[in-house]
Order: sequence, then structure tokens, then C-alpha cells
Amino acid sequence: MTLADRKVAVVGLGLMGGSFAAAIRGRCRAVVGVDRDAEALETALMAGLVSQATHSLAEGLAEADIVLLATPVRTTLQLIDSVRVLAKPGALVMDVGSTKREIVEAMERLPEHLWAIGGHPMCGKERSGIGAADPNLYRGCTFVLTPLSRTPPPALALALSLVSALGARPLILDAERHDRLAAAISHLPYLLACALVRCADDVAREDPTVWKLASSGFRDTSRLAASDITMMLDILMTNRDAVLKALDVAEQHLKHLRGWLEVGDEAALRAALQEARWVRVAWHTENERKDG
Amino acid sequence: MTLADRKVAVVGLGLMGGSFAAAIRGRCRAVVGVDRDAEALETALMAGLVSQATHSLAEGLAEADIVLLATPVRTTLQLIDSVRVLAKPGALVMDVGSTKREIVEAMERLPEHLWAIGGHPMCGKERSGIGAADPNLYRGCTFVLTPLSRTPPPALALALSLVSALGARPLILDAERHDRLAAAISHLPYLLACALVRCADDVAREDPTVWKLASSGFRDTSRLAASDITMMLDILMTNRDAVLKALDVAEQHLKHLRGWLEVGDEAALRAALQEARWVRVAWHTENERKDG
Repeated sequence: MTLADRKVAVVGLGLMGGSFAAAIRGRCRAVVGVDRDAEALETALMAGLVSQATHSLAEGLAEADIVLLATPVRTTLQLIDSVRVLAKPGALVMDVGSTKREIVEAMERLPEHLWAIGGHPMCGKERSGIGAADPNLYRGCTFVLTPLSRTPPPALALALSLVSALGARPLILDAERHDRLAAAISHLPYLLACALVRCADDVAREDPTVWKLASSGFRDTSRLAASDITMMLDILMTNRDAVLKALDVAEQHLKHLRGWLEVGDEAALRAALQEARWVRVAWHTENERKDG
Repeated sequence: MTLADRKVAVVGLGLMGGSFAAAIRGRCRAVVGVDRDAEALETALMAGLVSQATHSLAEGLAEADIVLLATPVRTTLQLIDSVRVLAKPGALVMDVGSTKREIVEAMERLPEHLWAIGGHPMCGKERSGIGAADPNLYRGCTFVLTPLSRTPPPALALALSLVSALGARPLILDAERHDRLAAAISHLPYLLACALVRCADDVAREDPTVWKLASSGFRDTSRLAASDITMMLDILMTNRDAVLKALDVAEQHLKHLRGWLEVGDEAALRAALQEARWVRVAWHTENERKDG
């Protein structure tokens, strides 16, 4: 049975779930959307992202061959418990949560008759919600798959065919490694953006003119601070040790930069900034090449 | 004599100088470009950004009614000394440097027969150099003007007509206030971006796969780390006290976030992240409205 013969249930019709549905509709037998929010269900149906929409998890999962959980991480953890009794035997359970250890642990406890694998597509958007759904959201992005020790090869193959249908690039990692890397490259930027906004806000309370000086540099560096709070809080709380370590390293680097600036050690400051520039420029060049 | 009757010398044909020349050419009598780099001069001439190009500051300034210094801040400080003897009596000396206190102090020492005012357009680009010059770079941006105590009203009026010719929004501030605000909204984001890139690089040295997980969040939060080092080092070194204060505030916010995460104080963490989100979303909405 290939992807084309399968029915997919997408649980959670936000940006990620809606975009997933939009991208695979037509490449599988049917897509059923499940959400508690009637408006999201209606939007998904009206926009043709799903062929069926329901607020009932039982109804949505009854005939699904693939169950995609596209909710904040801690909601997904709860859903895995419900999936245990509602998913049909042989179904593949997969998610798109931004941290993987706790989800994979919960998936390990699913009954033997269900297939399971963790997933995390490395993409997003400033806007959230079904209204921002985009069939091309996943195109070209890295889609991390974190197989469980019990994930059978056909389950991995099916997950890979899903990733391929999205136009994404699969990357197989174990959950612990994923979470450690994501802490540095994704969760730390969010916290730095929040700290920046709070600093600017402190200044603004005394002198609101500061906002007139905000330009593209502030806009980009602070963008992640506008992320959905429930989603981000779930990420931070399920990846605490790795995020704390990333924060410690960031504080060390800031402390060094501060120290060199304070004593006027221009050579050390220049070397550190130059190193950061080289790394960022090389990353950008490589990234453009890949996308181009 | 209006702007249309004046000859403008743009000293430093990089992104800012080149874009300035491109924007005002046709709105003044002539634009002469001055740069030590023969290639920049040729590019500016070939692209029609300037009507005349020279590597000689003396030649460039000889007949200029307006002298725009568009070089890194500490180069501008040195140039102000040369301008003193080379600019023709009655000329307006203005700059586009990102810190203003030291420049304004240097300008205060110019002879009585020269007009002077500090300037800082709040715009930029990922790319630098004359090749990235864009006549619309300044359009819609805030252009800070920092008059000296000795700037006569007609000099301020002329500077305002320049800002207007660029399509920018003038904002008159004193230099100390500008530097304090810019530290929080512009120089701090740069240092946070550099710290982030160094953290990611630390992780990458042990596990280069981290780069495969880098997405738009990392891209935007780290973008400023690719800024020109000489420009940024000049900015940091001429705004040390304000930047150090901004760094201290950022470290405090990061320490709070870290502490709440460590002890699992979700209510405090949520409140702080929510506050940052509100501020960022409100800023973005207001910004879109202004630009729209």
C-alpha cells in the first residue's frame, strides 16, 4: 500500500497541520482534518485543504492509515494517549513537534499494533494559524525524523514518502541529538529575541522615540519574539536541560564580548566578531546554494 | 539657494554613500563622488550615481556646497579634520554615521565658516558596497538629524531638504539621546546575533549537522552578524558606555528567563514571553501601518 492508497488524519489545523494537509492532498486517498475549533475546520474545508473535517478525534482517526499530530508539544503528548485507543491497528502515528525526546518516549508506550515515528520540519512563518497555511511551506526544508527503537523499516519508509510528498529533505536523527541541536539553532534564537524586545521595551518606557529608530536589524533579530507562546512554552519546558546549556554558552559569549568592549581590547573584539561574520556569511552562502 | 542649485560631494561610495548619491542625483546641481577605491569610483560613474568621481578629497570638496561623509564612524572622525581645511566656506558638512556623540564633538571644532550637522539614516541592507546601492534605500526610513549648538537654522533647513529629497522621515535628536537609543535598538541586536552565531558554531564544531536544522528563525536572528566588521567595531568603540548598559540589561533579562526555566516557574516565564510577544506584535503592526 503506497501513500496514494492511504487516508491521512491531520490533528491540529494550525499553520503546520494546515500546510501539511494542503501539500499532501491529492497525493493520498483522503485527508481528514481534526480540530476543536469549528472555524479552523470550516476554513480548512472551504480552502480545500482537507476532504473531511471533524471536531471528533474518534471519528477522524477511525479510518486513518496515517495520523499526523500537529499541535503544541504538550498537547501532542496528551493526544498520544488518546491515539492509543482510537487509532486503527497498523496506522502510522507521526508528529511535527519542535522537541522530540518526550514525544518519542510517549510514542514508545503505544501498543505494538501501531507504528510510530517522531518528526520535526525545520520551517515556520511569522504568522500562525490555518489562515497562513501554505502548500509550499515544507518545500526544500529539512524534515527531521526520529525513529523509535521499535519503528519498523516499512514505517520509516512510509514516513520518508510523506516527507518526499511535501518536497522536504529528510534527516534521520535520534531524539536526544535533535533536541540538543534544536536548542542552539532554534530555541536559543527565540529567547535572545525575547530578551532583545524586553530591553527595547525598557528603554521605550522612558523614551518611546526608540521605536522610531527601529529598522530592519531590530525587525529581523526580534522576529521570533512574536511566536505563539503556548507552542514556545511547550518547547522550552520539554527541552529544559538543553536550552539551559545553550543559554549558558550564549551568556559566556556575551560576557566575553562585553569584557573586551569594556577594557577596549579591540583586537580580541574584532577577532570574535570576524569569526561570527565568517561563519554567518559561509552559512548564508551555502544556504543560498542549496536553495538556488 | 535651494538644493537644486547646490553641488554635493559624497565621500565614501559604499552602500550608504552610493544610495545617497543615486537618490539625490537630479535633485541637485551635481554630485561628485570621492573614494580611495578606483573600482568604486568607476562603478558609481558607470551606474550614473555621480556626475563626477575622484580619489582626491581636495578636488571633490573644492566646489561642493554640501559635503556628505559616508564612511565608518572613525574614518569620518578623521575626515572631519581634513574637511576643515578643504571644504569651501559656507559649505554644509553632514554625515551618515551610526553613532553621533563623537562625530558631533568633532564637528563642533570645525571653523565658523562651515555649517555642520550630524545625520543617521535608520536603514541598511544585508549586502554592503556600491554594488548594493539603491536609490530607494532611504525611502520611508527615519533619518535622525543631530544639530550642533552652532548649527544655524538655514543649515538645519538645508539638511531637512536633503532628507526630504531622499524620501526619508526626519527626526531631530540630540547626539547623546540618539546614541543611547541606538545602543538598545541597533547595536545590541548586532551583539546578540554575533553571540548566537558563536553558540551555533560551538555546537557545529562537535556536530556539523546543526546547520541542517538552521531555518528562517536562525537566519533572521543571526543576520546582523554578517555586518561589516570595521563599521560595527567603529560603532561599538564610539558608543561603549551606552552599549555596555544595553548589554547589562539584556543579560538581566536572559538571567531571569533562564532562572524561571530552571526552576520551572511557568507562570513567570509565560508572563515574560507574553509581554515580549505583545510588544513585538504591536511594533510590527504599527510599522506595517506606517509603511502601508
